[in-house]
Amino acid sequence: MASAQLPETHVDVLIIGAGPAGLMAAAWMAHCGVKARIIDKRNSKIFCGQADGLQCRSLEIFDSLGFADRVWKEANHMLENPGPDGTIRRSDRIPDTIPGLSRFQQVVLHQGRIERFFLDNIKKHSKDSIKVERGVLPESLKIDESKVNDDAAFPVTVRLRHLTEEEATPPQQASASKVPHGLFRSNLVQENDEEKLLKQSESRAGQDEIVHAKYVIGCDGARSWTRQALGFELQGEATDFIWGVMDVIPITNFPDIRMRCAIHSAESGSLMVIPRENKLVRLYIQLKEVVPDASGRADRSKITPELIFGAAQKILSPYKLDYEYCDWWTAYQIGQRVGTNFSAHDRVFLAGDAVHTHSPKAGQGMNVSMQDCYNLGWKVALAAKGVVKRTVLNTYESERRRVAQDLIEFDHRFSRLFSGRPAKDLLDTEGISMEEFKDAFEKGNLFASGLSIDYGSSVLEAKSSADGVDDATQVASLVQSKQSLATGLPIGMRFNSFKVLNQADARPWHFQERLPADGRFRIVLFAGDILSPAQKARVDAFCTALDKPTSFLRRATPASATIDSVVEVLTIHSSPRTETELLRDFPEILHPYDEHTGWDYGKVFVDADSYHEGFGDAYKNYGVDKVRGCVVAVRPDQYVGWVGDLEDFGELERYFEGILVMQ
Amino acid sequence: MASAQLPETHVDVLIIGAGPAGLMAAAWMAHCGVKARIIDKRNSKIFCGQADGLQCRSLEIFDSLGFADRVWKEANHMLENPGPDGTIRRSDRIPDTIPGLSRFQQVVLHQGRIERFFLDNIKKHSKDSIKVERGVLPESLKIDESKVNDDAAFPVTVRLRHLTEEEATPPQQASASKVPHGLFRSNLVQENDEEKLLKQSESRAGQDEIVHAKYVIGCDGARSWTRQALGFELQGEATDFIWGVMDVIPITNFPDIRMRCAIHSAESGSLMVIPRENKLVRLYIQLKEVVPDASGRADRSKITPELIFGAAQKILSPYKLDYEYCDWWTAYQIGQRVGTNFSAHDRVFLAGDAVHTHSPKAGQGMNVSMQDCYNLGWKVALAAKGVVKRTVLNTYESERRRVAQDLIEFDHRFSRLFSGRPAKDLLDTEGISMEEFKDAFEKGNLFASGLSIDYGSSVLEAKSSADGVDDATQVASLVQSKQSLATGLPIGMRFNSFKVLNQADARPWHFQERLPADGRFRIVLFAGDILSPAQKARVDAFCTALDKPTSFLRRATPASATIDSVVEVLTIHSSPRTETELLRDFPEILHPYDEHTGWDYGKVFVDADSYHEGFGDAYKNYGVDKVRGCVVAVRPDQYVGWVGDLEDFGELERYFEGILVMQ
Repeated sequence: MASAQLPETHVDVLIIGAGPAGLMAAAWMAHCGVKARIIDKRNSKIFCGQADGLQCRSLEIFDSLGFADRVWKEANHMLENPGPDGTIRRSDRIPDTIPGLSRFQQVVLHQGRIERFFLDNIKKHSKDSIKVERGVLPESLKIDESKVNDDAAFPVTVRLRHLTEEEATPPQQASASKVPHGLFRSNLVQENDEEKLLKQSESRAGQDEIVHAKYVIGCDGARSWTRQALGFELQGEATDFIWGVMDVIPITNFPDIRMRCAIHSAESGSLMVIPRENKLVRLYIQLKEVVPDASGRADRSKITPELIFGAAQKILSPYKLDYEYCDWWTAYQIGQRVGTNFSAHDRVFLAGDAVHTHSPKAGQGMNVSMQDCYNLGWKVALAAKGVVKRTVLNTYESERRRVAQDLIEFDHRFSRLFSGRPAKDLLDTEGISMEEFKDAFEKGNLFASGLSIDYGSSVLEAKSSADGVDDATQVASLVQSKQSLATGLPIGMRFNSFKVLNQADARPWHFQERLPADGRFRIVLFAGDILSPAQKARVDAFCTALDKPTSFLRRATPASATIDSVVEVLTIHSSPRTETELLRDFPEILHPYDEHTGWDYGKVFVDADSYHEGFGDAYKNYGVDKVRGCVVAVRPDQYVGWVGDLEDFGELERYFEGILVMQ
Repeated sequence: MASAQLPETHVDVLIIGAGPAGLMAAAWMAHCGVKARIIDKRNSKIFCGQADGLQCRSLEIFDSLGFADRVWKEANHMLENPGPDGTIRRSDRIPDTIPGLSRFQQVVLHQGRIERFFLDNIKKHSKDSIKVERGVLPESLKIDESKVNDDAAFPVTVRLRHLTEEEATPPQQASASKVPHGLFRSNLVQENDEEKLLKQSESRAGQDEIVHAKYVIGCDGARSWTRQALGFELQGEATDFIWGVMDVIPITNFPDIRMRCAIHSAESGSLMVIPRENKLVRLYIQLKEVVPDASGRADRSKITPELIFGAAQKILSPYKLDYEYCDWWTAYQIGQRVGTNFSAHDRVFLAGDAVHTHSPKAGQGMNVSMQDCYNLGWKVALAAKGVVKRTVLNTYESERRRVAQDLIEFDHRFSRLFSGRPAKDLLDTEGISMEEFKDAFEKGNLFASGLSIDYGSSVLEAKSSADGVDDATQVASLVQSKQSLATGLPIGMRFNSFKVLNQADARPWHFQERLPADGRFRIVLFAGDILSPAQKARVDAFCTALDKPTSFLRRATPASATIDSVVEVLTIHSSPRTETELLRDFPEILHPYDEHTGWDYGKVFVDADSYHEGFGDAYKNYGVDKVRGCVVAVRPDQYVGWVGDLEDFGELERYFEGILVMQ
C-alpha cells in the first residue's frame, strides 16, 4: 500500500515504548501540556516481576509528579542490611540508605504498580488526552535533515502498524506456563520480534498510519527498534555469570529473610535477598550449573524454576528454604553495554535500556531509565512549546551518557563482588574479602541512591566560578557562578530538601515540595535578613531589576501568561517569622497580585522552627549566609544551575538568555 | 398498594443517610465484611461548602481506614492562630493544635472531598458490594419487639420509596441561583421535605420495597426522619445569634488572612477566618442586622450573600475585603440540642446531627458525627456477625451521649464568647475580655482535637482498679485493671501513637498504624526485656495460657479462621533489636505460622532507635516498665479497654468473656 493513501497525523512528541522510561517522558508531556502520543507493541501492562528497587532520588522525582505518597505507602521499606556472610553468620549490619541523604529512603515495589501510578498521573494531568496506545508497532522512521533546525517543523516521519490483540500478546502469556516469567524479555533472548510481528500483520490492509512528529523518544528497551532504525549500537561485553531471579513467599527459618542481604556460600555461589511488598521476597541466585557456550551464550532451555530454586536452597543450607507461591521468575546473563549515540540530530532520542544495559541486582535499571527521561522530558516538552532554545537539547546526551558510564562501571564492580567466591583467608587474593565487599556495599549505597549525580558544565550548568579561586579553567564568556554563596547547593546536583515554613500560614514544607515538575524554571531568592534595612535595600534592588519590562523574566513570559508561568520566583528569608509581614516587607514580584484571586500567598517562606515538625535549619544546611542570602537558579528537574549574589542580576540574566527563547 | 405485593429483601444493616456519619458506618461494614445498604434521599453528592474542619482524632481514624494520606495531602493545614483582636491589632499567636498531642494536626478540607474518600474506600473494601443508593427515601419503620433479643432475627422492617431524578434534586440546585448555598439544609429551615416528596411520588406505582434488617442506623441529619419515626426528640434551645458563612477567595490587605483567627469589632460584631484549600477562605460572620422574631425564628428571606459580606467588610474595616469568586454560602441560628434517646432496643440507632446539633464554628460537627459512627459501626458489625454479644451495643449510648453533652456545652461557651461584644475595660463585666477569650480558645483546642474523650466504665472499659489505691468504688465482680502499669495508656482513652520498629525488617511504624479498622480486638503484649531469663519465663507462661485450646483466644476464634482473626496479638519488646531474633526468642503465638506463607513477620516490634526517623521511646511514653512490661487490651476503635500484668491472664480472659461470643 502506498504511503499517499495512508492516514497522516501530526504530533509534537511521539514516545515509543510504555515502560517506566516512556511513561516518565509522557508524564512530562502531560505536566507541560504538550501534545504527545505514546505507543507500545505489547497489549498488556506488567502485573508482576520485572524491576523493583526504587532509589531515594526516584521517590523525590515521583513526589515532584505528585505520587510519591502512593509508592511510599505500598512499598516495602528497606532499612538495614545484615552484612555479607561467609558461612552464613551475620558479618555486619548497615543501614540501607545513608541517614540524612534524602527525605526518602530506598524502597521496593514492583514495576507494575509504578506503571499504574504513572498511568493515573498522566491521565489526570493530560486531562485524558495522553493514553498508551497498545498493540502499535513502528515500521519505519525517517528524519528530514533539511528541517532539523527549524523550530516549527515536524521533521520526523514514523510509519506505525496497528496489531491485532493476538499479535500483541507477549509469548509467555500465550503459553501454558502457570507461573509468569520474564525470559522473553531477558537478555538471554537475542532476537527481536518486530520483524515477525510485521510479517504476520502484512496481509491485513488498513492497519498503517503515518505520524509526523517534532520529536521522537525511543524507550523501547535493550533490543530497541528505534536504536536499530537509527543505525546505532550498544557497545560492551557479556560475562560468564548467569543469575536466576525468583519472586516467592518464602517458608524458611533463615532469620534475616525480611532484610536485604547477600549470602556468599563457600562453594555453591551467591544469593541476594530483597524483601518486598505482600510477603514476597525476591531472590537473586547465582547459577553455577549453567555455563555459556563457546559463542558466549547460555542454553536457556536448561533454565527452569526448579533449577534456580535448587541452587538457592544449596546456597542457604543449613537453613531451610521452601515456597508454595511463586509470583514470577526469570534469568539473565551479566553484561554491561552503553549506546554509541543517545540522539540523532536532537530530534530522535534514545533512553533507558535502549542506551544502557547491565545486571538488575543493584536495583538501578528502572531508576536510571526513568531518570534519563526525567532529564530529557522537560527539555523536549519546552523545546516543542518554543520555551527553551534547541541548544538545550544536546545537554541530554552530555549529562546522561556520563551517568550511563558510571552505572555500568558500578555494575561491573558490584557484579564481580557478588559473583566471585569469598576469600578463604587473607592470602587468597583471588577470592573476595568480606571487608572489600562491605566497603563496596557502602560506597554503592551512595551511588545507588541516585543523589551523587553531578551534571557537567553546559548552557544549563553555570559551573564557571566567579569566586576567583575555585576554578582555574574560568572562561570569561561563560556565565559566572558563585558556588561559595550556597555551599550546600552544588551546581550540577539536585536541590536538596529541608523544611521551611510558609510565611503566610506557618505551614512547614519540605522545600522540594515547592519544586513540582510543571516545566517551570525557578529562581530561589534567599532574601536573608529582610528586616535589616541594608539587606532590604539589596532585595528591593534585585526585585526592581526583575520587575522591569525589559528584564529576562518579562521577556521570557508570553504577554498573555502570568508572570510566574515560565520562571517562578520563590523566596526564603531568615528574619523572625512573627515580626515579618508578607504584604509589608516583600516586594510585589515575590507574591504577585492577580485581579481575580488577590495576592499569591504560596511563594514566600521562612527558615524558622515549626510547631510540630521541628526546625529545618535551611540556611545552615544550604550553606547560605543568614544575613546576606544569595540567588539560586533551578532547572525544571530540580538541578541547581546557577548561584550568585543579589547584585549578580546581569549574570542571572545571561544564564537565562542562554536557555530561554525571549519574546 | 399492599405490602404483600412489594419486593422484600433482607440485609444485616441498613444505613439511612450518606453524609460523613452514614459513610463512616458503611465503611465499618465494608471493612468488617458485613452485608449492608446505605440510602440517601438526595441524588447528588456535596461538591462545596458544608463542614470543613478535621480534628486530629478524625485524621487518626481516617488513617485506620486507610485514607488519611489523601486528606493530609489535599487539605489546608492550620498551624497558628493570631489571637483574638479588639481593634484589629493582633493580640496573640497560639498554635492551632497543641504540639505533641497527636501525629496529625487539625486540617481543613471540605466535606465533599471527605465523602469522595469514603466512597472510594467503601468501594474498595466492600469489593463494590456497598454503594450509596441515592434518591431512596424511607416511608415507614417498624420494630418487632418480640425478636429484638434474638441474634438471628431481622426485627426491623423499613419500607423504602425510590424517587425520580427530579424529586431527589435538592431545591437549591434546581433554583436559578448562581452561587451554591446551603440554606435548604440550614437550621433556619424548619420543615422536612420527606412528606412532600412522598406525596409527589405517590401516583407512581412500583417504586416501593420492603427491607428486613437486623440493624438500622439513622444518620439523616438534624431533621432526622428516623428520629421522628421512633418518636424521639432533640432537646435544647435556640439563641438570638444569627451567623452567616461564606467560602470565598478573598482579595484583601488583611495580613492574617491565611491564619485561622477571630476578629472582635467594637460595635459591628465578630468574624472568624478559616483558611482553606485552593486559595479559599471560610468566613463566619455575625449578622447583627438580622434578629429573630417573637417566636424565636429569623426571616430567612432577608439573608443574602450581599448582606453577609457587607457585615464582614464592616467588621474588618479599616482593612479592605473583596472577592470575585464565592464557592458557597449559608446562614444559621446558634442553638444547642441533644437527642432524648440514641437507640431503640439497640436495634435502631441514631448518630450525628440526628442526636446533637450545635453551631458549626468550632469545627466539631462533622468530626463528632463521624466519631459517633466510628464508635457504633464496629459494634453493630460485630454483633451482626455474631462476634460480640449484644450487650456491647448499649455502650454506644452511654459513651456517645456524654460526648454530645460535652460538645454542646463547649459550643455554648464558645458561641457566647464569639457572639458577645469585647469588654471596653476591666470594669466592663458584660463584655468579653481578651484574656477570657484566649483561655477558652486554648482549652477549646484540646477538646476540639477529639483526643480528650474518656469513655466511662462498661463491659468494654475495665476501669475498676486492682491497684488497690486508685479507686474506692471498686467492685469485686467487675474485671480488674492495673492502670499503674501503663500510665500513658489511660483506660477509656484512645491508644496514643509512638514509633516502634518491626523486629524482622527494622522498619519504623507509628504504632497506631498497626491498629487498623478491620474489626479486630487486639492484645498488645509489652514483653519487656525478653533477653532476661526471668522475664522470658513470664512471657512464655502468658503465651502458653493464650495458646491453650481452652483459652478465650481459641474459643473466640471460629475453627475455620486464622488465630488472629478475632483478637490479634501484637508485641512490643524493649531488648536490643540486633541481639534478639524473632524465631528464636518469641513464642509462636506471637508470630503465627501459616502453612502457605510461613511465619508472620508483621506482629513483633521493638522500642528502639531508627535509622531515619528518630526514637519513639515508646515504653517511656506509654509509661510501661522496660523490664517487666504489661498487657493491654485494645478495642477495634483503638480505645484502651484493659491493662494488667502478664500474670493477670484470668482478668484478661474475663474481660473478653464479657464481650465476645465464645464458640
